[in-house]
Amino acid sequence: MQLPVFTTAEFKARLDDFRRPWHENYLSMYATPWGGIVTDPVLMTVPVDDHLVHRGDGVFDVFLCLNGKAYSLEAHLARLERSAARIGLWLPEDYAEARSIFRAVARAGGERDVCIRTMVSRGPGGFSADPYECAASQLYVIVFRYVPRPAERYEEGVVLSSVTVPVKPSYFAQVKSCDYLLNALVKKEAADAGADFGVTWDEQGFLAEGATENILLVSPEGELLIPTFDRTLRGTTLMRLMVLAEDLVREGVLIGIRQTQIDRSWAESCVEVMLCGTTLHVMPVREWDGRKVGEGKPGPVARRLRQALLEDMRSNDAVLTPLF
Amino acid sequence: MQLPVFTTAEFKARLDDFRRPWHENYLSMYATPWGGIVTDPVLMTVPVDDHLVHRGDGVFDVFLCLNGKAYSLEAHLARLERSAARIGLWLPEDYAEARSIFRAVARAGGERDVCIRTMVSRGPGGFSADPYECAASQLYVIVFRYVPRPAERYEEGVVLSSVTVPVKPSYFAQVKSCDYLLNALVKKEAADAGADFGVTWDEQGFLAEGATENILLVSPEGELLIPTFDRTLRGTTLMRLMVLAEDLVREGVLIGIRQTQIDRSWAESCVEVMLCGTTLHVMPVREWDGRKVGEGKPGPVARRLRQALLEDMRSNDAVLTPLF
Repeated sequence: MQLPVFTTAEFKARLDDFRRPWHENYLSMYATPWGGIVTDPVLMTVPVDDHLVHRGDGVFDVFLCLNGKAYSLEAHLARLERSAARIGLWLPEDYAEARSIFRAVARAGGERDVCIRTMVSRGPGGFSADPYECAASQLYVIVFRYVPRPAERYEEGVVLSSVTVPVKPSYFAQVKSCDYLLNALVKKEAADAGADFGVTWDEQGFLAEGATENILLVSPEGELLIPTFDRTLRGTTLMRLMVLAEDLVREGVLIGIRQTQIDRSWAESCVEVMLCGTTLHVMPVREWDGRKVGEGKPGPVARRLRQALLEDMRSNDAVLTPLF
Repeated sequence: MQLPVFTTAEFKARLDDFRRPWHENYLSMYATPWGGIVTDPVLMTVPVDDHLVHRGDGVFDVFLCLNGKAYSLEAHLARLERSAARIGLWLPEDYAEARSIFRAVARAGGERDVCIRTMVSRGPGGFSADPYECAASQLYVIVFRYVPRPAERYEEGVVLSSVTVPVKPSYFAQVKSCDYLLNALVKKEAADAGADFGVTWDEQGFLAEGATENILLVSPEGELLIPTFDRTLRGTTLMRLMVLAEDLVREGVLIGIRQTQIDRSWAESCVEVMLCGTTLHVMPVREWDGRKVGEGKPGPVARRLRQALLEDMRSNDAVLTPLF
């Protein structure tokens, strides 16, 4: 096999060959070593020796920016910092300027409805597993277009499938690391089973979480049930929903909100099931493992919680940070 | 904060700013989308949207090339293929030509004592966890200089520390994925404890493995003991050593070779402890958790196994594949 060996000049001249249709959604990126921003997607790369690439040694978080305002920015950053601390990852120097960087990268991207993904990596320096080989942590910020899911999905509900992928060790439940293969395999197993989303159960038979979603249920008595956080990630959207759901308790739509261990028979008795996440908002489940959930269509709690969340994202200045 | 936004031309012109001292060890790299090879380290990058980067969704393997010959190439490729199959990862089309690609990349690198790292990623296509978002699997091959450990380390032995990092779920024990944060944290915890290497124990209290090393012990009776593979990776070096150790049994240096579950008191009674791995070969342990191993210096079995392995790497044509 004869493979060309490209000189640096030849390689630079070939960059256009690496353009891909899906790049149209990528708006801008910042990286520590650049000390600046690029908007050309073919330049949006990471050094192959960053331990992020070959070991998953890094943490991430993603927040939405809608109409130019970041939603729950501080909650996302606090979680990113907790994730980093949990794996003993020092934050890079430029992280001190993270909020300014988000503003600059978002503006360079030029659009106001975007996802902003932040990764802090252990950094480049070689190909071993040893974090002490790395020169310094790196900050990567990527801004890409936010494409909401079609409205029908929310009106019809989605199909959920329980998967066999094991739940992470508790040690990692609260770490949003780039070591997310288990989560990817939850997505894959669910899709292979013809479902829209997958959900895991822990070794004791208690409900855990989706690939990148938390799960909420409504008991026949009208109690909002949420799995405990010992094996599931403390989702920022879930944390907001737990606050917003208090209004539904006051109105009598819900009788209460409880975090607890939920086994299969209890889960199957529930009249509503929904998933939540940063880009998903609140998505009602109509079918789970071949069984109809409730009446097989979205219920009132999911609808009300989604409305409350959208309203919060639109107009609650206490959790909105203007980036433009 | 004013951050520059670089045009594509400006960014290309700045590439020299990204040179780093450790790049001198990076010799050459191949990547599927390039259809060729680069030798300039600043070009050795991976698209940020490859799920390898943001999810650890990919597998890898590493083999040594010494004096121009790849050692145990077929065993490494077989394992890479098993790792990929385990996570439902399709091999990219160019993988069919992997052996020719290794030859071309090694030659482009121009040196004959190198490590060749192969990664197969889920591929680029977006930033979700969903593998079905990816356009196609990608093959990345990186050749970097092999720097052997100093001879004194083998003569003096190393310090080993038990760590608290949990062992992976069995589901992943045989997957060499890029989701290797647990392994990185084993390294980190050991280094933080002042040790050279770390080793994990499973939830039942049985010995597991190092960060990227298998462990072998010699009982007072002279039996070579190796943890079972239900929670530890089937190391290619270990597999070779199990074959080579049969000579030591025939000679009476060992009374036998056994894979078994090893608890702490049995481990502490052992007269020799050693680690093995692709770039490590056989490394004797002189101290473990503050206790002297045997007489606190390398024992005869470690020495003989290392000699046998080095000899095998040098001259056993059955497991050597010329790349030059």
